[in-house]
Amino acid sequence: MTTMTHSPTTSTMTAAAVDAVVRDALEEDAPWGDITSELLIPPGVQATARLVARESGVLSGGGVFAAAMLAVDPAIEVHLAAADGTRFAEGEVLATVRGSAHAVLRAERVGLNLVQRLSGIATETARYVSEVVGTSARIVDTRKTTPGLRVLERHAVRCGGGHNHRFSLSDAVLAKDNHLAVLASQGIGVTEALLGLRARLSHTTHLEVEVDRADQIEAVLAGGVDTIMLDNFTLAELREGVAQVAGRAMIEASGNVSLATVRAIALTGVDIISVGALTHSVRSLDLGLDVDIDVPADVS
Amino acid sequence: MTTMTHSPTTSTMTAAAVDAVVRDALEEDAPWGDITSELLIPPGVQATARLVARESGVLSGGGVFAAAMLAVDPAIEVHLAAADGTRFAEGEVLATVRGSAHAVLRAERVGLNLVQRLSGIATETARYVSEVVGTSARIVDTRKTTPGLRVLERHAVRCGGGHNHRFSLSDAVLAKDNHLAVLASQGIGVTEALLGLRARLSHTTHLEVEVDRADQIEAVLAGGVDTIMLDNFTLAELREGVAQVAGRAMIEASGNVSLATVRAIALTGVDIISVGALTHSVRSLDLGLDVDIDVPADVS
Amino acid sequence: MTTMTHSPTTSTMTAAAVDAVVRDALEEDAPWGDITSELLIPPGVQATARLVARESGVLSGGGVFAAAMLAVDPAIEVHLAAADGTRFAEGEVLATVRGSAHAVLRAERVGLNLVQRLSGIATETARYVSEVVGTSARIVDTRKTTPGLRVLERHAVRCGGGHNHRFSLSDAVLAKDNHLAVLASQGIGVTEALLGLRARLSHTTHLEVEVDRADQIEAVLAGGVDTIMLDNFTLAELREGVAQVAGRAMIEASGNVSLATVRAIALTGVDIISVGALTHSVRSLDLGLDVDIDVPADVS
Amino acid sequence: MTTMTHSPTTSTMTAAAVDAVVRDALEEDAPWGDITSELLIPPGVQATARLVARESGVLSGGGVFAAAMLAVDPAIEVHLAAADGTRFAEGEVLATVRGSAHAVLRAERVGLNLVQRLSGIATETARYVSEVVGTSARIVDTRKTTPGLRVLERHAVRCGGGHNHRFSLSDAVLAKDNHLAVLASQGIGVTEALLGLRARLSHTTHLEVEVDRADQIEAVLAGGVDTIMLDNFTLAELREGVAQVAGRAMIEASGNVSLATVRAIALTGVDIISVGALTHSVRSLDLGLDVDIDVPADVS
Amino acid sequence: MTTMTHSPTTSTMTAAAVDAVVRDALEEDAPWGDITSELLIPPGVQATARLVARESGVLSGGGVFAAAMLAVDPAIEVHLAAADGTRFAEGEVLATVRGSAHAVLRAERVGLNLVQRLSGIATETARYVSEVVGTSARIVDTRKTTPGLRVLERHAVRCGGGHNHRFSLSDAVLAKDNHLAVLASQGIGVTEALLGLRARLSHTTHLEVEVDRADQIEAVLAGGVDTIMLDNFTLAELREGVAQVAGRAMIEASGNVSLATVRAIALTGVDIISVGALTHSVRSLDLGLDVDIDVPADVS
Amino acid sequence: MTTMTHSPTTSTMTAAAVDAVVRDALEEDAPWGDITSELLIPPGVQATARLVARESGVLSGGGVFAAAMLAVDPAIEVHLAAADGTRFAEGEVLATVRGSAHAVLRAERVGLNLVQRLSGIATETARYVSEVVGTSARIVDTRKTTPGLRVLERHAVRCGGGHNHRFSLSDAVLAKDNHLAVLASQGIGVTEALLGLRARLSHTTHLEVEVDRADQIEAVLAGGVDTIMLDNFTLAELREGVAQVAGRAMIEASGNVSLATVRAIALTGVDIISVGALTHSVRSLDLGLDVDIDVPADVS
Repeated sequence: MTTMTHSPTTSTMTAAAVDAVVRDALEEDAPWGDITSELLIPPGVQATARLVARESGVLSGGGVFAAAMLAVDPAIEVHLAAADGTRFAEGEVLATVRGSAHAVLRAERVGLNLVQRLSGIATETARYVSEVVGTSARIVDTRKTTPGLRVLERHAVRCGGGHNHRFSLSDAVLAKDNHLAVLASQGIGVTEALLGLRARLSHTTHLEVEVDRADQIEAVLAGGVDTIMLDNFTLAELREGVAQVAGRAMIEASGNVSLATVRAIALTGVDIISVGALTHSVRSLDLGLDVDIDVPADVS
Repeated sequence: MTTMTHSPTTSTMTAAAVDAVVRDALEEDAPWGDITSELLIPPGVQATARLVARESGVLSGGGVFAAAMLAVDPAIEVHLAAADGTRFAEGEVLATVRGSAHAVLRAERVGLNLVQRLSGIATETARYVSEVVGTSARIVDTRKTTPGLRVLERHAVRCGGGHNHRFSLSDAVLAKDNHLAVLASQGIGVTEALLGLRARLSHTTHLEVEVDRADQIEAVLAGGVDTIMLDNFTLAELREGVAQVAGRAMIEASGNVSLATVRAIALTGVDIISVGALTHSVRSLDLGLDVDIDVPADVS
Repeated sequence: MTTMTHSPTTSTMTAAAVDAVVRDALEEDAPWGDITSELLIPPGVQATARLVARESGVLSGGGVFAAAMLAVDPAIEVHLAAADGTRFAEGEVLATVRGSAHAVLRAERVGLNLVQRLSGIATETARYVSEVVGTSARIVDTRKTTPGLRVLERHAVRCGGGHNHRFSLSDAVLAKDNHLAVLASQGIGVTEALLGLRARLSHTTHLEVEVDRADQIEAVLAGGVDTIMLDNFTLAELREGVAQVAGRAMIEASGNVSLATVRAIALTGVDIISVGALTHSVRSLDLGLDVDIDVPADVS
Repeated sequence: MTTMTHSPTTSTMTAAAVDAVVRDALEEDAPWGDITSELLIPPGVQATARLVARESGVLSGGGVFAAAMLAVDPAIEVHLAAADGTRFAEGEVLATVRGSAHAVLRAERVGLNLVQRLSGIATETARYVSEVVGTSARIVDTRKTTPGLRVLERHAVRCGGGHNHRFSLSDAVLAKDNHLAVLASQGIGVTEALLGLRARLSHTTHLEVEVDRADQIEAVLAGGVDTIMLDNFTLAELREGVAQVAGRAMIEASGNVSLATVRAIALTGVDIISVGALTHSVRSLDLGLDVDIDVPADVS
Repeated sequence: MTTMTHSPTTSTMTAAAVDAVVRDALEEDAPWGDITSELLIPPGVQATARLVARESGVLSGGGVFAAAMLAVDPAIEVHLAAADGTRFAEGEVLATVRGSAHAVLRAERVGLNLVQRLSGIATETARYVSEVVGTSARIVDTRKTTPGLRVLERHAVRCGGGHNHRFSLSDAVLAKDNHLAVLASQGIGVTEALLGLRARLSHTTHLEVEVDRADQIEAVLAGGVDTIMLDNFTLAELREGVAQVAGRAMIEASGNVSLATVRAIALTGVDIISVGALTHSVRSLDLGLDVDIDVPADVS
Repeated sequence: MTTMTHSPTTSTMTAAAVDAVVRDALEEDAPWGDITSELLIPPGVQATARLVARESGVLSGGGVFAAAMLAVDPAIEVHLAAADGTRFAEGEVLATVRGSAHAVLRAERVGLNLVQRLSGIATETARYVSEVVGTSARIVDTRKTTPGLRVLERHAVRCGGGHNHRFSLSDAVLAKDNHLAVLASQGIGVTEALLGLRARLSHTTHLEVEVDRADQIEAVLAGGVDTIMLDNFTLAELREGVAQVAGRAMIEASGNVSLATVRAIALTGVDIISVGALTHSVRSLDLGLDVDIDVPADVS
């Protein structure tokens, strides 16, 4: 049984997706049981545990942590003290758990591995987001996510105040240098190609094109794109790009984005700044599980 | 077709396990196809690509990168220029790929996400391993791996010269403070409990026990453990522990291990130093895929 | 071995998705083998078969038919005589097959069930598309597809010259009457809600809103939607809607669309006409497999 | 929680089979959530919905519709007002649903897609069955079912008063022209072959043989078949066939069966009439879900 | 590559079913690789192996053994020297294998576990079959098979000259005492119930009823059953039953069947004798794999 | 709902593993339902059943039997009267079951097949264990388990008082004659190879080596192995081996072990005796399910 407060930021991460990740992880972490606890702790013993922040940060994955517990034993009671997206201080208790000691210890590592990683992403995202406060830019993720965990990591980015880019190669067009090179080598104009492409796309499909040089911008805009990505542009080039596009499309800045550079990039007036490091280089946040085991007077 | 040089370090990562990860990741990254390439690049077009190191490091996941390509199209030719475990410099070409442009671009992100992550782990592990050169300590991983990727990440640790700890809760005993507390609360002596446990374990199962204080060591040793883990001991305490154990069991040091502290810990004489950060906080190594697309004279 | 001509219209239907459908269907159709053929036809016997059109239509699923054959036996040779999207006449041979008689007969029903259904969809779609020739409207599908076959049926719609709507509830927003009612009941203005929604959506996510009455249009447009759906509007209302929207968003007409009404709807000037019947009510096209079995002089 | 009245006609469609179909369909229809409802409707909001017949027909798939709701959220209450197999009039309420608005809207399309399709099959089957009332013929389905949905579609045929043919290639023998041709080309007599076949078959396996011409009948009967299929026989030929067989085997008529011809075929005295159109060409019945969303005074 | 001679007895065991069993078994037997061989044998080393009979018997599972090898490495060459169903003497070589030493040793145990078990079943079945030579009885299996291996074990029974009973609860009716008791308690006559049942069953579904006493026979026969099972009848009772039934249905004898009793039972004139012990109590046949490992002059 | 007393011996068999086996078995045993019960027994009917020992033995798989019932219908009540590992006499009631007659009959065969097999293994193991009472030897299983059932069969061995050997090729090293031959052919000394191997193994991995001759023992011991396996040694050779090893490693005896020989082997002083027959040749224990079906006065 979970007492869980769903925050709006948990949207678009389905229970089925979370359960699939959790069950595979549990199978991986104990393919034929937890031989230590099963041999040393009698079956009837109960445990109480608290998920405690050992450093400050932004929570993501509280529901995932709960799902890991419940996947081992639906009788475990999990109380989430904070919704995903909540900023917390060192020492705060983020969740409490009560249930069979066997089950709590079995789920502990999997639950922690996930909530620590997701909270690490949320916390890092929040740092980027706070850097661009007051500008018109949004921080977005990329497809540089951990294989198998994309749904969860995108959720973590939203928990940190970031936005998501396209989910996958299937749900939006993002034409890059290779694609433009193919067109060029066939003698097909970019504008013509993009107009033809739009005619074949679903009306719900977003069309974004990456350019490396300012002189590519006009042809791409003439193709009717929704977003133009300025890849590895200098700050000066970005400012010129923003002026040149002049609202005819959204502008995404990409490349060389770090906490040190992101504010300057945002101040050029771009709409979107994509940051691969949000998910490709993650420091798990230090969250711990303090477990107390109750031993009743007589365990048979 | 892959021309692949298997290094001994690739052992214990089965092709089936790699394929399962790769196929799930490809499905995640393009559930209904790569709409950009399929609409902009004619089917007959071929591509050549080079996996290039944008920074120096230790390779891990070359075979995984190849598997991602081959899972999309078995006709892709992949040549791995270096075996897993190889140290490389910035600018080196680690693999070359040739095949359908559609397929290469489809597999690119999944292949990169994996080889970058694994090489990041191998490279970080190698830093720890080089710190303990000349001591008797080995660097080992923990269960703080990415859910779903444990087999691969353990391989990456070995590529970096590290060793693996137990795979899971199922294949070795590691009794921790909670387990000892349960025994204590029942009035069961640690030594007695461990002897009883050994009598029930498979003769192939390793028995390790964690202690928090030096005064627990004798009782644990009397229980006939294979390894004793000294958790969060100071350097002085570790030195005393090594003296006290005096070869009666292997000694693992755990807690507060970083690149700054690992050599001092190793010099205390412990046998094993476990480092959660090898896998719980990974910076993906910067490896890039340089893709050249050939456009034949007439693509129909 | 397949000799297959990929048409651009086959894009976005991955081999993995096709194979998954085909393998499940084969398992369903012969969970423990084809007891008739295995007991009456010696193993060595070869068969030649031709996929013949028993009526005219538009082909879709040629590659799926081939995949069914190859899933049973990769040694079967399949030659597709026409690409998906090709219009054919009664009596035309659409594919030829050669291989083990056991395997060809085993795959026959599954291959036919799929190519007949998909060609039925493509053919019906083409009828709608030809009705709107010369107008600015495109014919699109809906989520009223056969459970499990959405990827294939969307492909079939494209083969018939139609376009796809959003794939699922996940990749685009389509706010309907229920959603607007919730906002109203909370005293939240539509315009305000849509602007707030846009601020939270990925920049690649399309925003479409359904309205039932003309007086809802302005508030929705003020919310910055990409597409406005006019649901169950009369022709007169549609014309007024087109005038009122005046290019500020794309317009989708929905409801009461049939072959008899679609041209009149298109002539109102709407951009998109969605037709549930393309996939929710399908007549399989009559395609047959003419099988000739060769019996060599001596089958051992 | 479902209040469900199982009719005998629901037999042989296991809960596991239904759940597998429903879960795949839900995953297909919202791989990463319902972004519209999750962003526009607060989590606490409840909905009430009624499944209403927009046209008359025969119900099939009430339990499947309920299973779709419960698969999203086991807390949804579903009350089925009519058992599968019930004939209903336009306007009747077939089921009522109450639960979380998020969950009900998430399951709506999948539930409807299935119950509409199955009720379409049941209703069409019932038309055929009513045509043969008073004759000794039964209406049976074929293997021309939708890949992945055979268990459900066979159930729908039974709901309409029809019977099932063999489930698959594995559970009964049906020797066709190709099989007889192989025997002939080897110089093996049909009678001899069938007797030999019977000796090898499980005693529970039904043996049916298709013939194209009346002169094949005697040899087949001498082989001891259970059922003889007269394929594409004229009405006169069927009558002669019935006289010739004279009760020595059951007789199945196949080919050119439509609502216009089925009664005449039945009047020839055949036992079984197989109709591919029951499942290969389905018009989904028009059933709608009327959803009312309750917005409590204060949704937190 | 396999050189395999398919015997007719291999029918109805699909390659997909065999592969599924083999892949699960390989995963179970080496979830993260064969650490012994991978660490002690260089990758380039080849092995030759012979599957040798350490006792005489009847072969079953040659193709399954080959499939285990090929699932590990498709480059392994397997030559099956004997078809399934072949009787062999101690010392005979049943198959030869050549390929990577890593792969052969990895597949060895799984391949042996399966072919030993299946050949054990075939050999035991053949003993029963030889006991009833010259009678009209056939030996059939039951549903007392190993969970997960039913397709393979039924094949093994056929290899030994036995026949199969129904595959599962789904493909034939077998009404037992509990079913008849339910009818009785409702005041429904058996004959009436069976006639009603037949009217609802598919015409391809076999109808068998178990009786415990001779006085039940007439009512059951009047219900039009295909087979009547005489359960735990004495030899005298069986003889009387055969006389009473007098060809109006097939007769199955069940209960207390052993090698010591089976001939006497067969001589009573029953048609079918079902033997649970064929599959519920299996002694694996002693087949061994003699492996020779070639070490080339220089293994890199 | 299950009232289940977990015995310590049930450890290391996870609920997920049991459920996976049970669900596959149920699917195999009734892919499209139980057509007999569903057509002859009204839905509302309840059944009571008792699992009765038809012969004496040791129980294993009580929880598995319960899991089969609950997988069909979570509303079934199962009361286990004895814990796994309990010795019982003929006629004892081991479990009672109450629930829907449809569900109980559906689960009956699968539940029985599993509990009979596992209890057969436990009972046979107990025979071996009782033979070695008073010696220092333990009885252990091997990898000769039924594919797919290893977790369950290892549990059964523990229920009978036996111990487990390594789970798989992945969790311990067991170097055999082939491995030593490869080393020899390369001119690598065994001692050297084993020391090198130990340096690369995880510190938790057990190192066991098989020898065929006494003269191999010293080199192997010098390699620092944990266990030495004496394969096919005579009793005299075993005694000499025990003396030679003199406590420097554990000793496993393997080969030619039967109930007739095991005590003599144990008396040689070896530590471990591995018995393939515990699992490769299993006689299912005769346990029956006595089902009583309640027919209420009025079943609609």
